[in-house]
Amino acid sequence: MPVFLDATAPDFEAGFARLLSAKREDSADVDEIVAGIIADVRARGDAALIELTAKFDRLALTPETLRFSEAEIETECARVPAHEAEALELAAARIRAYHEKQMPQDALWQDETGATLGWRFSPVSAAGLYVPGGLASYPSSVLMNAIPAKVAGVERLAITCPTPDGAVNPLVILAARIAGVNEIYRLGGAQAIAALAYGTETIPAVDKITGPGNAFVAAAKRRVFGRVGIDMIAGPSEILVIADADNDPDWIALDMLSQAEHDESAQSILITDSPAMARAVTVAIERNLATLERRDIAGASWRDYGAVITVPDLATAAQLSNRIAPEHLELCVTDPTALAEQTIHAGAIFLGAWTPEAIGDYVGGPNHVLPTARSARFSSGLNVMDFLKRTTLAQMTPESLRAIGPAAETLAISESLEAHGLSVRARLNHLNAL
Amino acid sequence: MPVFLDATAPDFEAGFARLLSAKREDSADVDEIVAGIIADVRARGDAALIELTAKFDRLALTPETLRFSEAEIETECARVPAHEAEALELAAARIRAYHEKQMPQDALWQDETGATLGWRFSPVSAAGLYVPGGLASYPSSVLMNAIPAKVAGVERLAITCPTPDGAVNPLVILAARIAGVNEIYRLGGAQAIAALAYGTETIPAVDKITGPGNAFVAAAKRRVFGRVGIDMIAGPSEILVIADADNDPDWIALDMLSQAEHDESAQSILITDSPAMARAVTVAIERNLATLERRDIAGASWRDYGAVITVPDLATAAQLSNRIAPEHLELCVTDPTALAEQTIHAGAIFLGAWTPEAIGDYVGGPNHVLPTARSARFSSGLNVMDFLKRTTLAQMTPESLRAIGPAAETLAISESLEAHGLSVRARLNHLNAL
Repeated sequence: MPVFLDATAPDFEAGFARLLSAKREDSADVDEIVAGIIADVRARGDAALIELTAKFDRLALTPETLRFSEAEIETECARVPAHEAEALELAAARIRAYHEKQMPQDALWQDETGATLGWRFSPVSAAGLYVPGGLASYPSSVLMNAIPAKVAGVERLAITCPTPDGAVNPLVILAARIAGVNEIYRLGGAQAIAALAYGTETIPAVDKITGPGNAFVAAAKRRVFGRVGIDMIAGPSEILVIADADNDPDWIALDMLSQAEHDESAQSILITDSPAMARAVTVAIERNLATLERRDIAGASWRDYGAVITVPDLATAAQLSNRIAPEHLELCVTDPTALAEQTIHAGAIFLGAWTPEAIGDYVGGPNHVLPTARSARFSSGLNVMDFLKRTTLAQMTPESLRAIGPAAETLAISESLEAHGLSVRARLNHLNAL
Repeated sequence: MPVFLDATAPDFEAGFARLLSAKREDSADVDEIVAGIIADVRARGDAALIELTAKFDRLALTPETLRFSEAEIETECARVPAHEAEALELAAARIRAYHEKQMPQDALWQDETGATLGWRFSPVSAAGLYVPGGLASYPSSVLMNAIPAKVAGVERLAITCPTPDGAVNPLVILAARIAGVNEIYRLGGAQAIAALAYGTETIPAVDKITGPGNAFVAAAKRRVFGRVGIDMIAGPSEILVIADADNDPDWIALDMLSQAEHDESAQSILITDSPAMARAVTVAIERNLATLERRDIAGASWRDYGAVITVPDLATAAQLSNRIAPEHLELCVTDPTALAEQTIHAGAIFLGAWTPEAIGDYVGGPNHVLPTARSARFSSGLNVMDFLKRTTLAQMTPESLRAIGPAAETLAISESLEAHGLSVRARLNHLNAL
C-alpha cells in the first residue's frame, strides 16, 4: 500500500519523517566486491576486463572486440528504424541547444590596485560515459551524457555499455554517433569504471566519469573519485507531483507511473490541496496499472514507496517539497511559476500540466541526469560545468604588490609560514631599494 | 636529493613518469578507522564526539562547550593584534570582491515551439567548513571557505576546527566572524565530518562540507559524499614554477620554499629553459633553507619530492605542465599571458615574477582551496558554484507539446517505457480531440 498522509493530522510529522528516511536502495554492501574488481583491473588490465565480462555478461571478448569497430557501429546504426532515428535527432538538437546556453564566460579585469584578476574555463581532455545495459539501456541517457561533454569541448569521449549475452541496443549506438562519440566499449559494472579511471592496454584512462548505474557502478565511482572526477552517486529515481483540483487525474497518474515503471525502488509522491484529486489519482493509478506492460515493476514501486499527501494549501506543499528535495518536481497548478518560486530544492521543475516529466526525459532540452535521494539540496543535474574546470588567474604589478603585499606578509607571519612572507618581502625590498 | 631532469635526455620520459606517479600521501589505510568513527557518531551523537575529542585532542568537552559561545568568540577576537585584524579585513574584502564576480546568472527563454526553458541557481541551505587545527590552523582558509559560501547566499554556516589541548588560534575565530560565521565547534578529524553530515543532538546536519584536512578528514569526506555534498579530496599541496633566464633566483627559491614549508609531502617543481637559472635556484634554495624556521619540513619536502627540469623551450615547459596539472602554477617569464594560453590544466595561475604564490594564499582574491594531485585535470578550486545548485525549468505549451511530444513518445516506446509514452499521448489525444 502506498502511504497516505494528511498534513493537518497530528501524527503527520512522524509519518512524513518516515517517508523521508525510507531507505530505497539495496542495502547489500557491495563495496568489498567492487574494491576487488578495481584492484584486479588495475593489476591485470584487459585480461581482467575479459574475464569479468565473461563472468557477469556471459560474453567472450578479446582485446580487439572490447571496443565496437567502425563497421559494427555502422551496422548497428543501420538497424534503427527511420522514425526512431528522427526522434533521436530531434532530441539531440534540443538538448544541444539547451546546453549551449550553459557555457560559462571567462573573465579578466583590473582591480583598483592595478592587479589583473580573473578566471578561465577549459574542458577536461577526456571523459568516460557509463551507459547501463540490459533493461535500463537508454539511448536518451547517451544523449544526455555525451552532448554536454561535447558542448563543453571535451576532445575524447568514451562510452562503456554492458552487452549482456552480446545483446546490443542499436539505438544506444546511434545515439552515441549522433552525439559525436565513436569510442564505445562492451563493458559494464565496476570493471568498466575501473578501466575508465585507470586505463588498460587498450583503453586509455579518462579524467572524468559520468552516467548512472547500479549499486556496483555507484560504489566503483565513489572509489575512483579523486583519481578522476565523477558526476554524482545516483540512486533510485523519484518524482513529486504537486497538483491542485483542476487536473485530469489520468494525466497525473500516468506521470507518477512513468516514474514507478523505471525501477521497483523508484518513488512517486503526490501532494495535493484537493482530497478529491488525491482519491481520483489513486484510483487512476490502479486502473492504469492493470494494463501497463511494466505493471510488476511499477506496481511494486507504487505499493512500497508511493505516497499521497493532502495539504491545506499550496504553500504547505512547497514547504514539504523543499524537505523532500525531489529529483523531478511537477507543478500541475494554475500558477506554476508562482509556486516554483517557493520550491527551492529540486533537480528539475516541470511547470504546468502540459509538461509531463517524460518530456524532460527525452526532448525538453534540460538534462535528465538529475540529483536523487534528496541530493538536490546540494547538487545539480548534469550540465556543461561538469566537463569544464575553472583556472583562476592573478597578475600583480609592482604597484599592486606594494598595496597588498604587506598584508600578505602579516598573515603569513601570523600563520608561521616564514617563506611565504619572505617571498613577498624579497620583492617589496627590491621595490623599496629602487 | 631533489630530482634533476633534462627534457632532452634520452631517459627523460622514464624519469618524468616516475615524478608524476610518485605517491606523496601517507599510504596508511585509515578508511576502516574512519568508518568506525562515523558509525559511532551516528549512533551516539554528542557522547561520541565528546569521547573522541578527549581521546584525539586531549580536551574535555560537554554538549554545552562543543560550540564556542558568543562570549568566547568575543574574547578570542579581542586577542588579535590590530595589524593582523586589518590584514584579515583587507584579505576578506578582496576575496569577497573576487567571488562576487563568480555569481552565475539565472536564465529563462522561449524556444521556437513556444516552450519556456531555463534554469535557476539557489544556495545550499547549510554548509559546514572544516578548518584544520594544530600546525595547519590557518585563518586564511576560514576566509577562503566561508566567503564564497556567504557570497552564494548560504544561510547557515558552521565551522569545525580541532583545538588540541584546548589551544585556539584567535585569528581563526576572528576570520570566522569577519566572514559572517558564528557557529564554531571545537571538533576535528573524522568525527567533525560525521557530525556535520549526520547531525547530533547539538549540531544540526548540513548539506555541504568543504575544507581541507588530513587523511582522516579526507577519508571521512569520501564516505559521507552522497549524504552531503563535498568539495574535493585534497592531497598534499604543490607548486610548479616555470621560469626563464630573466629572474632573481632568490625570488623563485622562496616561492618554491613557500610550498615546501607547508608539509613534508608538499612538492615544488621548477621548469626552466635556462640551465644557469636551474643551478642558481637550486643554490638559492639551499642557502635559504639554512635559516628557515621550518627548515626541517621544507628541507624534507625539497629532498624527497622537489624537482628541477630543464627544457629546450617554453613550449615544452607548457606541455610538461599540462601533464603535471599543478595546483599552483607560477609563470615567471617575459610574456606570461602567452604562456598561460598553453598551460591548460592548473588550479591557479600566477602570472609574472611580481606575483608570488603567497599573494594568492592570502590577499590576491582568488581562492586558495585548489585541486591537488593532478586533479586540476578535471576539477576547479573552491568557488561560489560549490555552494549553489542549478534547478532546470521547463514549461510546455499545447503547441510545443504538439511539436515535440510525438518524438518523446517514440523514444519512450523504443525504451519500453510505456507509461512515459502514455503520459505524453494522453495530452496529445486531448489536444487532437479539441
